[in-house]
Amino acid sequence: MNEIKIFSPATVANVSCGFDVLGFCLETVGDEMIIRKTKEKGVKITKIIGADLPFEAEKNVAGVAALAILKAANADFGVEIEIYKNIKPGSGVGSSSASASGTVFAINELLGSPFNKQQLTAFGMKGEAIASGAEHADNVAPGIFGGFTLVKEVNPLKVVQLPTPSKLYATIIHPQIEIKTSEARSILPKVIPLNKAIKQWANVGSLVSALYDCDYDLIADSLEDFIVEPHRSQLIPHFDEVKKAMLDAGALGGGISGSGPSVFSLCKGKEVAEKVASAIKKVYQPTGIVFDVYVSKINAEGIKII
Amino acid sequence: MNEIKIFSPATVANVSCGFDVLGFCLETVGDEMIIRKTKEKGVKITKIIGADLPFEAEKNVAGVAALAILKAANADFGVEIEIYKNIKPGSGVGSSSASASGTVFAINELLGSPFNKQQLTAFGMKGEAIASGAEHADNVAPGIFGGFTLVKEVNPLKVVQLPTPSKLYATIIHPQIEIKTSEARSILPKVIPLNKAIKQWANVGSLVSALYDCDYDLIADSLEDFIVEPHRSQLIPHFDEVKKAMLDAGALGGGISGSGPSVFSLCKGKEVAEKVASAIKKVYQPTGIVFDVYVSKINAEGIKII
Repeated sequence: MNEIKIFSPATVANVSCGFDVLGFCLETVGDEMIIRKTKEKGVKITKIIGADLPFEAEKNVAGVAALAILKAANADFGVEIEIYKNIKPGSGVGSSSASASGTVFAINELLGSPFNKQQLTAFGMKGEAIASGAEHADNVAPGIFGGFTLVKEVNPLKVVQLPTPSKLYATIIHPQIEIKTSEARSILPKVIPLNKAIKQWANVGSLVSALYDCDYDLIADSLEDFIVEPHRSQLIPHFDEVKKAMLDAGALGGGISGSGPSVFSLCKGKEVAEKVASAIKKVYQPTGIVFDVYVSKINAEGIKII
Repeated sequence: MNEIKIFSPATVANVSCGFDVLGFCLETVGDEMIIRKTKEKGVKITKIIGADLPFEAEKNVAGVAALAILKAANADFGVEIEIYKNIKPGSGVGSSSASASGTVFAINELLGSPFNKQQLTAFGMKGEAIASGAEHADNVAPGIFGGFTLVKEVNPLKVVQLPTPSKLYATIIHPQIEIKTSEARSILPKVIPLNKAIKQWANVGSLVSALYDCDYDLIADSLEDFIVEPHRSQLIPHFDEVKKAMLDAGALGGGISGSGPSVFSLCKGKEVAEKVASAIKKVYQPTGIVFDVYVSKINAEGIKII
């Protein structure tokens, strides 16, 4: 194989109670990438469609991720990368991660699949670090593994794959406003009350159990974030109305996707997910803020060859 | 049925990372109780062997739990209760809970089983409140449900039953010292660092996943308590040496049982659990502190009729 074309999906990190730990993978939103072997070693980004991103490999998340995996494999070839971005940078659904994780997935295929998913996630994190300033796996892991993932530790990396109940859909609204990462970070408290932390880890535990048992009622009960949402939701216009509309329309629960501005909900079945989409459109249409709404099954497979 | 004899096992609450949330049930340690229907309504405690506890029903955890379930059932009979305590009060392995949960289990049988396990847990909590000053389900739930339980919420009560990997054993040491509940509570911090709380809920999530997947390595990786153990372990003499001895002898992990003074470890297989028992005996024997050591399979069934 000398060339591979892949679909690298959008992902949701910081899933409600599972801040910094739980993520999941989407199916209907994602970038496409073509990666081509070259005789010359090194990484060339030859095309970027849909976003204004650097072509210099060392400054591009895909480029940095590619260099990491090629170096680790001691590859005797280089690559050319074409990126067709559909996930808007800064949307909060893993735009940079999709480029990083798609690249390492594709190059692993070109190499004959020497690396496992944990290793691919680690290479993807090298790319992600260029965009976010820190190595984290919140969005890389769900892209590489598919479905729901729990990042137990970053150093050394330990990703736990969780099951994906088959009727689970997500509805996501991306209000096209900018949230500065620095602000999203600085608004977080450094210390939190122990009693709220206990409620949070009870929810994480019950959410994981509910995913194994396909218990949609328990998923709904568990999707509550006592720690981060009360702070970060202030940065998202009309958050409370959106969340109320989601729940009123039948969503199991929801919250901020990544560090925002996107807001996600999880729903049992496509029909409910589409009702939720209509409901949140009604909230945002009068505001004048430009927005996108996506409905997607949870993608249990992750990145795929197309 | 006019009379029932049951075995009500000891339980471990506050399982490492799952402080206030995760518990499990033991098999080889527990109380026996005989509960007998009486024509006269009300509750009489007729015998207590093995511990110095009040006979007045309203002041005895078994009595209070019995009154709660009989009232809810609008029962046309009363009960006599005989309590044969093997679990030492104040040991940290659910002595009062065993009396409360055993009683409600037994009376439910005498009533023809009208109540489910969630309801029985709620009745048991009424009894437990007399002993601990607050309604909590940490030890009642694992007794009633068996195996591992996650108490997601106390009000309204929501207990999640978790799977029990079949090779899982516990080794427990009970140093016969008194830890005052007030001191165990006051030593806890009111606020905790967000970054440690995140590590804690990552562990809770991965521990729950590991129980479903029978992944003993992941159980071992997840049994770390960043929040409570560093404080409460100070109240238990030689805690660090005991824990080190447990891990050196092959335990998957461990921590404080309940609010102490007992210390538990979880082990893969009986052989390891017995090695751990020998290792911790060696730590405690020279100290002059009187202690008991128990080895028990995790009891997936909970309370049983004998």
